Amino acid sequence: MSNHVYKHIELTGSSTKNIEDAVSGAIAKASASLRNIHWFEVVETRGHVENGKVAHWQVTIKVGFTLED
Amino acid sequence: MSNHVYKHIELTGSSTKNIEDAVSGAIAKASASLRNIHWFEVVETRGHVENGKVAHWQVTIKVGFTLED
Amino acid sequence: MSNHVYKHIELTGSSTKNIEDAVSGAIAKASASLRNIHWFEVVETRGHVENGKVAHWQVTIKVGFTLED
Amino acid sequence: MSNHVYKHIELTGSSTKNIEDAVSGAIAKASASLRNIHWFEVVETRGHVENGKVAHWQVTIKVGFTLED
Amino acid sequence: MSNHVYKHIELTGSSTKNIEDAVSGAIAKASASLRNIHWFEVVETRGHVENGKVAHWQVTIKVGFTLED
Amino acid sequence: MSNHVYKHIELTGSSTKNIEDAVSGAIAKASASLRNIHWFEVVETRGHVENGKVAHWQVTIKVGFTLED
Amino acid sequence: MSNHVYKHIELTGSSTKNIEDAVSGAIAKASASLRNIHWFEVVETRGHVENGKVAHWQVTIKVGFTLED
Amino acid sequence: MSNHVYKHIELTGSSTKNIEDAVSGAIAKASASLRNIHWFEVVETRGHVENGKVAHWQVTIKVGFTLED
Amino acid sequence: MSNHVYKHIELTGSSTKNIEDAVSGAIAKASASLRNIHWFEVVETRGHVENGKVAHWQVTIKVGFTLED
Amino acid sequence: MSNHVYKHIELTGSSTKNIEDAVSGAIAKASASLRNIHWFEVVETRGHVENGKVAHWQVTIKVGFTLED
Amino acid sequence: MSNHVYKHIELTGSSTKNIEDAVSGAIAKASASLRNIHWFEVVETRGHVENGKVAHWQVTIKVGFTLED
Amino acid sequence: MSNHVYKHIELTGSSTKNIEDAVSGAIAKASASLRNIHWFEVVETRGHVENGKVAHWQVTIKVGFTLED
Repeated sequence: MSNHVYKHIELTGSSTKNIEDAVSGAIAKASASLRNIHWFEVVETRGHVENGKVAHWQVTIKVGFTLED
Repeated sequence: MSNHVYKHIELTGSSTKNIEDAVSGAIAKASASLRNIHWFEVVETRGHVENGKVAHWQVTIKVGFTLED
Repeated sequence: MSNHVYKHIELTGSSTKNIEDAVSGAIAKASASLRNIHWFEVVETRGHVENGKVAHWQVTIKVGFTLED
Repeated sequence: MSNHVYKHIELTGSSTKNIEDAVSGAIAKASASLRNIHWFEVVETRGHVENGKVAHWQVTIKVGFTLED
Repeated sequence: MSNHVYKHIELTGSSTKNIEDAVSGAIAKASASLRNIHWFEVVETRGHVENGKVAHWQVTIKVGFTLED
Repeated sequence: MSNHVYKHIELTGSSTKNIEDAVSGAIAKASASLRNIHWFEVVETRGHVENGKVAHWQVTIKVGFTLED
Repeated sequence: MSNHVYKHIELTGSSTKNIEDAVSGAIAKASASLRNIHWFEVVETRGHVENGKVAHWQVTIKVGFTLED
Repeated sequence: MSNHVYKHIELTGSSTKNIEDAVSGAIAKASASLRNIHWFEVVETRGHVENGKVAHWQVTIKVGFTLED
Repeated sequence: MSNHVYKHIELTGSSTKNIEDAVSGAIAKASASLRNIHWFEVVETRGHVENGKVAHWQVTIKVGFTLED
Repeated sequence: MSNHVYKHIELTGSSTKNIEDAVSGAIAKASASLRNIHWFEVVETRGHVENGKVAHWQVTIKVGFTLED
Repeated sequence: MSNHVYKHIELTGSSTKNIEDAVSGAIAKASASLRNIHWFEVVETRGHVENGKVAHWQVTIKVGFTLED
Repeated sequence: MSNHVYKHIELTGSSTKNIEDAVSGAIAKASASLRNIHWFEVVETRGHVENGKVAHWQVTIKVGFTLED
């Protein structure tokens, strides 16, 4: 909450299970290279359909992290 | 990915369980009459409340499918 | 469906589990003081991240209820 | 309110009289071929002007109906 | 126009007659408990359909009023 | 429909009667100085409230007219 | 301009050439089964990329046509 | 950050000085009756003009606060 | 880049050829009476269809120009 | 508040100082040729950057004024 | 379509020729440093005007690519 | 204005003083690692409240810079 500057990036995670799992996968991937991720916001929820069933949930999120000094 | 033409329709599925189940129900229903459904996008997530509890999740999706030749 | 008047309020529920649980928590809380809640609509889905994992899902909903006579 | 699936279509009705008449005309027309229309939502209100007067009100609505089993 | 603070609430009025009547009903209801309502803005116009006719116009408005000292 | 160029302007009409009358008033006023007005689109519907009643309907429209050669 | 009712459908056309060709392809396809198409509006312009080049332009349009009596 | 539920309300503050002062005035007014206000978001910035000068800045904010147990 | 004031107007150009030609036509027309046009932004892309072909591209642009002293 | 008709125009003011000064400059400029400006609404806030500093604030406003009889 | 994570970036390409060329230029530039670009979406189409003619088309796109393991 | 390609990133600056200071802080921080920042656009203005006062202004901006050859 001090005078930090935050940067936002946009990611899409995918999952065969559900929306929450797609979000978690994208955040885990981003955390491998970015420390200081604080929040996300869901921007879009889509999916692929195969044979009348949802094959993948694809959730696009905006992720915010602190720019380090 | 060739010069196909796709059509989009808008459906609302409902479920007493969760958001994913409401989406899957709408896609299953549409697949009974439409072959070639490829993707969906969540347009709106609503629900009905009874006695202080969510009685139904109602999820509106846009569904895309190939127009056959 | 008669000539009732409805009021909408905006709430954010949070949950460590999933999106549906965050919505249900907000509705349960509102129902403690408001009778006649009929529907909700998801306005925004966000969350907090700690150590590369989703710590809280935070879902903002618009809730509609009948104004009593 | 059970596990029905709903479909939405978009129509434009026109009327020389007023907005309500344009909406009612579009719904009457759609009802000739679709049973189970439950609701509508106004998407856009436009009109044509001739000689400085509104000649036609043109109201676009989204109409929702139950997909039958 | 002085340094007053205004609050906005969102209401839905319904009417079997027309859009204006649905708005007026919501404002009359709100005025029973709130003095100092100054303006409204139409947020959404919807309706219920029965037997191919508009059964109720449902108009959602944002209403602004002065917070008293 | 030929290679004409159209210009759009935004106007707000007001009326103590109803939405249609507010639109018609704005178009009549604009037609006094502009020939060739062809269409309008409703951008916003607001109003002023006095003593718990709608005192004025205020409807903002975008108006399109042909630029003359 | 009389009391006709219009219906809108949403299509995506694709083309290896350009945006205009993707639109024209979708309209040609729709015209094979629908008479009375009068207008379209571009809703979204996307594309696929292969080897650093645009492989397909994909343009989504809303198409309006008269419902016949 | 625990399982609290937050409520949002919408206020308009006005000031003859600047945007920040209009926001601060609305928050000070709301804080007189609401404890636990945590954040705000600017929704709209408007103003009144008199004699070619800005007479009042009017800033609408959404304010979030914790619902107490 | 100094303390100039810019005005924006909205125009629709039409062309039987393509989107770029519709934009260029609107700008050429506006330039006949307005000096100092600096930029444009595409607001809407529509068209008329005749016999299953695009008869006219109609592109609405917002145009910005310097108000002269 | 009587049956006046209002017109809206869109302007961008710029200032090296701050947002409020950019708005005031645009309104002062417009007032030189237009009497009866009553309100403005901020549509967009941008700026130019030179050498890592904000060189100009550029604020686009919609301005409303009464059309005289 | 597996559990990949995608990242989106926003670019503006410019061209003296047309919209498609501005998009292609931005994608070619991005492909020099990013492998695995799969799609783009047009976000905004603008341009600069000189002497009553379009001097540059400036098209902003969102570009999606796979984050490598 | 030549055939350069620009990239946009989204940042949030915060300040205890005002909106302009939050924007300037984010741009100063970004300029430490990025040359060629040309413009910004305000995307969102929020803030934190402590004890009925604005503790921090948090302004999210989109920043554009030239991709170097």
